[in-house]
Amino acid sequence: MTREYRFTFGQFLSQVHLQKKIPPADAILRHTNTVSASRSILVCDTHTRAIALGIRGNLDIPLCVLSPGETAKGWPAVEQILTTAKEGGLGRDGLFIAVGGGVVSDLAAFGASVFMRGCKLCIVSTTLLGMADAALGGKTGFDLLGIKNLVGTFYPAGHIYLPLETLTTLPRREWKSGMAELIKTALLDDGEMVNTLKNLGDEFLRGDLLPKYEEPLFALIAASVKIKGRIVEADPQETGTDRALLNLGHTFAHALESSAGLGNLSHGEAVAWGLVRSGELGHHLGITPRERAVEITGLVRSFGYEIAAPHPKMGDKKNFMTALRGDKKQKAGKLRFVLPASRGALVVEDDLIEPRSLVSLINGEYALCY
Amino acid sequence: MTREYRFTFGQFLSQVHLQKKIPPADAILRHTNTVSASRSILVCDTHTRAIALGIRGNLDIPLCVLSPGETAKGWPAVEQILTTAKEGGLGRDGLFIAVGGGVVSDLAAFGASVFMRGCKLCIVSTTLLGMADAALGGKTGFDLLGIKNLVGTFYPAGHIYLPLETLTTLPRREWKSGMAELIKTALLDDGEMVNTLKNLGDEFLRGDLLPKYEEPLFALIAASVKIKGRIVEADPQETGTDRALLNLGHTFAHALESSAGLGNLSHGEAVAWGLVRSGELGHHLGITPRERAVEITGLVRSFGYEIAAPHPKMGDKKNFMTALRGDKKQKAGKLRFVLPASRGALVVEDDLIEPRSLVSLINGEYALCY
Repeated sequence: MTREYRFTFGQFLSQVHLQKKIPPADAILRHTNTVSASRSILVCDTHTRAIALGIRGNLDIPLCVLSPGETAKGWPAVEQILTTAKEGGLGRDGLFIAVGGGVVSDLAAFGASVFMRGCKLCIVSTTLLGMADAALGGKTGFDLLGIKNLVGTFYPAGHIYLPLETLTTLPRREWKSGMAELIKTALLDDGEMVNTLKNLGDEFLRGDLLPKYEEPLFALIAASVKIKGRIVEADPQETGTDRALLNLGHTFAHALESSAGLGNLSHGEAVAWGLVRSGELGHHLGITPRERAVEITGLVRSFGYEIAAPHPKMGDKKNFMTALRGDKKQKAGKLRFVLPASRGALVVEDDLIEPRSLVSLINGEYALCY
Repeated sequence: MTREYRFTFGQFLSQVHLQKKIPPADAILRHTNTVSASRSILVCDTHTRAIALGIRGNLDIPLCVLSPGETAKGWPAVEQILTTAKEGGLGRDGLFIAVGGGVVSDLAAFGASVFMRGCKLCIVSTTLLGMADAALGGKTGFDLLGIKNLVGTFYPAGHIYLPLETLTTLPRREWKSGMAELIKTALLDDGEMVNTLKNLGDEFLRGDLLPKYEEPLFALIAASVKIKGRIVEADPQETGTDRALLNLGHTFAHALESSAGLGNLSHGEAVAWGLVRSGELGHHLGITPRERAVEITGLVRSFGYEIAAPHPKMGDKKNFMTALRGDKKQKAGKLRFVLPASRGALVVEDDLIEPRSLVSLINGEYALCY
C-alpha cells in the first residue's frame, strides 16, 4: 500500500510518498540526495519526539524539539530551529526534516526557506491535517501580532511522506482538525470523495477509523493529494484565483480562530464552521443552491462539528468582524470569500456583499433547515 | 542624466532608475502600480529619515524608522517593519519602500518577502554601497547568532532607484564602504571601470568626488549595474557558480567582519581587505598572475584601505579561522573562494587549498612587493 505523486510548483518539484510505514532517516537522506546525516536536522515537537527518534535511529542527526501547538507558532520557535541548524553546521545544501503536523511543518519549512536563503526540506506528516492539507503546497509561516501566518514564504518540500501508521495514536482533537480539510477538498471536487465521506461520519463519531477503515482513509487522502496538488500546480503562489479555491470556508475560519483566541479552537473545527457559513452566505447571494448548502451543513454535522452561528467559542463579535476585515486574503482593500457553487466553488469579492449581510450571517439569520 | 535598466531574475522583473534626483512618492506609486498611498509603507533609519520624509511629501504613508547600522540588523528590526505594515493595513498587494543603504534595504526587502508570504518592494538606495551592490540582485536578510545574513531570502525589488544627489551628504565611512564593491565589480569585468578607478583614488582620499566628479561616478555606477545585473540574471539564486563570482574577496571579508565584531568594520573595508587576500592566495596557488595581484593591491591601497595581514582590527585569529569555516557559501562541507584569474575571476574549493596556506596568508606571509 504505497502511492507516489510528483508535482511541479513553479521552480520546485515535490514528491509525495503516501504509505503505511514511517520512513527511516537513511531512506530520507537517499531520496533527498543528502550526502551524510551530519548535513541534516530533525524538527519535531514534544508530541512527535518519539516518532522523530524512531526515524533518526542510530544516525547522528541533531534534534530540535519544539513546544507543541498554535500558541508556540512564533518567531522564538523559528529561532530555535535556525539555531539547531547553525550549531549542526549545516550549509546551503543542508536538509531540514520536519516531523509533525501543520504547526511543526509550517515552522520547519519557514526555517528551511530562510536559512542561508534557502536549503533542502522534507516533511514527514504525522497528522490528518498535515496529510490532508498543510504538508503539500509550499505554504510556510508563523503567527505574529495575533495574526495566523502573517509571516511566511512559498517553499514547497522536495519530499513529503504521509505515513498512515502515525495516525493510529492521533488524539481525537487532531482527527477532528484534519477531517474538516478533507471535507473541504471533497467539496471542491464533487467527486467520489463526498460519497466516501458520507459513509464515514458515524464511524468517525465512534472514534473508529483506524485500523478498521484504513482503506477508505487511504483513498480519501490519495484523492485529496491529487486534487490539492492539481490546484496548486495551476497557481503555486496564489497570484490568480485558482489556488484561492483552497480557502473555501477559510475566510470565516481564520477570523473565528482569531476572535476565539489563537489555539482555543483547532483549525479544522474553525474550517468546518466556516464551510457551513460559506454555504449559507452563498445561498443568501444566490450562488449556492439550497440543496447544496443543506448537504454541506449535514456533512459537516455528521462528523460532530459545531455548526451554530454565532459559534459558542467565538468571543466578542466585534473582534470577529475586525479579524474578518483584516484577513490576509485582502486584495486592494477587498475581502475575498470562496463560496460553493452548483459544482465546485468560486471566489467572490466583498463589494458584492452588503456589510450587514455578514452580521446577519454571523447571527445565524441565514441558517437553513435540514 | 537618467538611465534605466531592466533585468529578469528568475520569475522577477527589476527595473533600475539611475538618476540625479530623489524620486517623489507619487512617481514611485505610479511606477509600481500601487493604487493609493494607504497601500504602502516607507522604511528608513534615523540617518535617512529626512530623505524618506522628502519622498513622502504630503502623502499619508506610514513611516518605519529603524536604528541605524549593522548591529541593529536583527529580528527586532524586521518585527518593527512588519508591525508598521500590519498597522498600516497593508494587504498582499501592499508596497514596501526602502529608503537607505544596504542594511535598511536588506531588512525591508526581507520584510516584504515574508509579509503575507510576499508583497511589493521598491528600494531607494541612498549609499554608494547600496548603489554599487546591495540594492540590486534580490538578496535580503538579517544577522542571527553573530552570523551576517544567516537568515534571508531571494526577493528582487520591482523598482530600484539610485539617486546620486543622496550621496552629496554621505559620510566618509560610507563612501569607503561602497567604493570597495565598485572596485570588486571592476575586477570582475576588467574593462573600462578599472581605468576610471585608477584615476580616482587621489580625489577620493581628498574627499573630493561629488559634485566635481559626478560624471565618472555616474559612469562607474552605470557600469556596475550592468555587470552585476548580467551576472545575477545568469544565476539568480546562486545555484551555479556564476553568481558566486560576485563574492570575490567576500569569503575573507565576512570572516573578518565576524571576528572584528559585527559593526566594527564597514563591509567595504572588509571587502577591500578581502580583495587583496584573494589576489595573494590566487598568486600563491598559481591562479592569479603576479602583476595582477600587485595591481589589485595597488588599486585597493590607492583608495586608502587597510591592506595589511593580519588586519589590525581582526581580533582573535582563531575566531577568524572559525568564521571562515562557517561561511555560508559552504557547500557540502567545502569552503569556496573566488580568486582573480588572468582576466575576471574563478571559484576554487578549499580541498585544493592546504589549511596552513590560509594561516600563512592571514599572517601576511604571501604579501607581495608593489
